[in-house]
Amino acid sequence: MYKVKVFVTLKESVIDPQGSAATKALQKLDFPEVQDVRVGKYIELKLEKTDKDIEVTVHNICKGLLVNKEVEDYRFEIEEVVAQ
Amino acid sequence: MYKVKVFVTLKESVIDPQGSAATKALQKLDFPEVQDVRVGKYIELKLEKTDKDIEVTVHNICKGLLVNKEVEDYRFEIEEVVAQ
Repeated sequence: MYKVKVFVTLKESVIDPQGSAATKALQKLDFPEVQDVRVGKYIELKLEKTDKDIEVTVHNICKGLLVNKEVEDYRFEIEEVVAQ
Repeated sequence: MYKVKVFVTLKESVIDPQGSAATKALQKLDFPEVQDVRVGKYIELKLEKTDKDIEVTVHNICKGLLVNKEVEDYRFEIEEVVAQ
């Protein structure tokens, strides 16, 4: 079994309205030190082992469903779960 | 300047409809090895240095705006940005 952590972020050049709203809200909520907030997705996957290459599979999963490559970037970490 | 990465996840006991939908969609999309998907938030904050304790500040930011403590857990990593 693999546990995969995927981090999806908006590309630097893409405006993040949710992050901008959070920045303003936090500055009003007594946190004037907050300069910037960017909101992305954190996705945990559990995958059974197969003969397929796990890295290739995760890239295909990200491109196929989880990530919009036009506006988002992603990176991931793969852990092998030996026993649970 | 601090760069803070916040990972927000649904508590284990909370049903994740978005994750369930992603699991089913991936299984149909030729990834039968996908057992489970959980969708959370990945938030990057940039904060100016102040006299306040940075860890306490980030906890307060999370509890004050970013995290719903009833249904979500969070953890964070703090990096000090020396120069950019």
